[in-house]
Amino acid sequence: MEVAQVLHMNGGRGEKSYAENSLVQRKVISITMRIAEEAITNIYCSTFPTSLAIADLGCSSGPNTLYAVSELVKAVDEVRRKLGHQSPEYQVLLNDLPGNDFNAIFKSLAGFQENLKKQMGDGFGPCFFAGVPGSFYCRLFRAKSLHFVHSSYSLMWLSRVPEGLEGNKGNIYMASTSPPSVLKAYYMQFQTDFTLFLKCRSEELVAGGRMVLTIFGRRSQDPSSKECCYIWELLAVALNEMVLEEEKFDSFNIPQYTPSPFEVESQVKKEGSFTIDRLEISQVNWNAYDNEVHQSAAFEDGGYNVARCMRAVAEPLLVSHFGEAIIDEVFSRYGEIVASRMSKEKTEFVNVTVSVTRKG
Amino acid sequence: MEVAQVLHMNGGRGEKSYAENSLVQRKVISITMRIAEEAITNIYCSTFPTSLAIADLGCSSGPNTLYAVSELVKAVDEVRRKLGHQSPEYQVLLNDLPGNDFNAIFKSLAGFQENLKKQMGDGFGPCFFAGVPGSFYCRLFRAKSLHFVHSSYSLMWLSRVPEGLEGNKGNIYMASTSPPSVLKAYYMQFQTDFTLFLKCRSEELVAGGRMVLTIFGRRSQDPSSKECCYIWELLAVALNEMVLEEEKFDSFNIPQYTPSPFEVESQVKKEGSFTIDRLEISQVNWNAYDNEVHQSAAFEDGGYNVARCMRAVAEPLLVSHFGEAIIDEVFSRYGEIVASRMSKEKTEFVNVTVSVTRKG
Repeated sequence: MEVAQVLHMNGGRGEKSYAENSLVQRKVISITMRIAEEAITNIYCSTFPTSLAIADLGCSSGPNTLYAVSELVKAVDEVRRKLGHQSPEYQVLLNDLPGNDFNAIFKSLAGFQENLKKQMGDGFGPCFFAGVPGSFYCRLFRAKSLHFVHSSYSLMWLSRVPEGLEGNKGNIYMASTSPPSVLKAYYMQFQTDFTLFLKCRSEELVAGGRMVLTIFGRRSQDPSSKECCYIWELLAVALNEMVLEEEKFDSFNIPQYTPSPFEVESQVKKEGSFTIDRLEISQVNWNAYDNEVHQSAAFEDGGYNVARCMRAVAEPLLVSHFGEAIIDEVFSRYGEIVASRMSKEKTEFVNVTVSVTRKG
Repeated sequence: MEVAQVLHMNGGRGEKSYAENSLVQRKVISITMRIAEEAITNIYCSTFPTSLAIADLGCSSGPNTLYAVSELVKAVDEVRRKLGHQSPEYQVLLNDLPGNDFNAIFKSLAGFQENLKKQMGDGFGPCFFAGVPGSFYCRLFRAKSLHFVHSSYSLMWLSRVPEGLEGNKGNIYMASTSPPSVLKAYYMQFQTDFTLFLKCRSEELVAGGRMVLTIFGRRSQDPSSKECCYIWELLAVALNEMVLEEEKFDSFNIPQYTPSPFEVESQVKKEGSFTIDRLEISQVNWNAYDNEVHQSAAFEDGGYNVARCMRAVAEPLLVSHFGEAIIDEVFSRYGEIVASRMSKEKTEFVNVTVSVTRKG
């Protein structure tokens, strides 16, 4: 499986789309936004560039796509107003894999820009948008052309399914029953990919440029710990309940790695182009509706919402391996399993956020 | 009708798509390419930039989208090899209206880039691609960020249907029966739009930056001359054959203007940011297969091919005004009409190409 050709969030605006099922990812952006705002206003204030280039890597398609970017632009505009500066020109570069639904983003841009202008008032912008298709494990932008890079819930995706997972029987991701060789293969792929990511971005960012990355990760030292693997383990249960060829099942593995803060830190240090400004952990309930004051029907549907969210994320991967036919049933079973687990235990995603500066 | 929201070439890869029905437009690019190559190698050789930003405006979606750009990049690479220079980084910016099928372009990019690398050999590139949705009658790019702008068969599209066409009864475009007020309204809209285009590009191009624009136009001084209006007049005949409400028919007008070289020249001079290096006229047969040595079945199908080509271009405009229901019949009748005319007379599109330099 060519991950770069297969992986993408479900497109469009339908009930199975990522656009309609990405509230958890939005919460993650919201929770970590103060770190990103601090970093972008810092780079802005250190040089007052007349043109500020911001890239969002793994932008997806839906309400989240422009959410982070608009918050970042607002933060800079607030500062420049306080200081009485003219607005910089903003260049917003939206990146995702080529299968991402860029058409949907582009159709929404005119309305978005109009709103932004209204909100920001006179003296703001201009703000130019471009879509940049391709894997962020390659160079995507010209040398020294970016001031700020943001990425949320994208970097846990590996460039490929690691080699050497033959021993991972009965699992589709790292699990407590995975042999050490499997955990090692996953970790090695993460190291290779993340180092390449850092190297590419170090070439693209200006000296002093900033980058804030939030990755679905874990607190524990153990890569097979429940906090990061459970969500996939339950999908494996759903798949296992169905009558699938054993070989078909065993040869499917999710191309993802959920790193610890320590692993992120040590790769950044090893690669050497960046200094670390912040390294933080946060968490978000699987149920995106968990902190509503009056818990709604949507909260009650928590398990099914989580299943829909995971479907919007993982459907293309599953279809490419198992075909279309089983998908509805897999996610129907998955919804029941997740709902049942969520009623009995506290379920959270752990977010690792690192804020770094390109060395001068 | 909001032209920017409605106008786009038919998407996808199906039999009605622009991708499958744009051979004439490809020929136009091919015929005028030497002018564009001369201009881009000229700007390259005048400054030897380490990074070369090329924008294609109205790139559409299909084989033509990357054709012009790849020829331009090849031309620069040939020169820099001869001179023994290192390759610049190429930044290719593909622009079209938001309804354009960017997803299809983006999915084809990986294969295209691989081929390009193979063809060009070691030492080439890198070459970065981005999609930039929006009307070229607005600013699209950062100030002074472009070296070269190319646009072929796009600038005859106006930003809107001109005001004051109420008198254009029985026509859908300028025609010999159009009253002078209609011709004037069309020309004024062209002047406004083309001036705005030049102004925006003058802000985006570096000093000395080059621009080569090819526009579907005419030789004659008369804007209602047959050479530019006949293709639409025959569509009006097809529409008229069908039982349509008179008011519905009379309120439909194509948002296009086919300028003469003189009109192009005088707008460029009036706007004032550019000097004109070349101003040329060429022509291409409506039947894209006309110069085959052994004329094929495709040549025989000429009229129907032209109808398909025009459908790929104009269908979204017609659908937005008349609805879906009549489209198949309109273009079936149009095919017959065009085929009949082409068997009796020589039918050509006139191309006006202008090559300009941004004043320093």
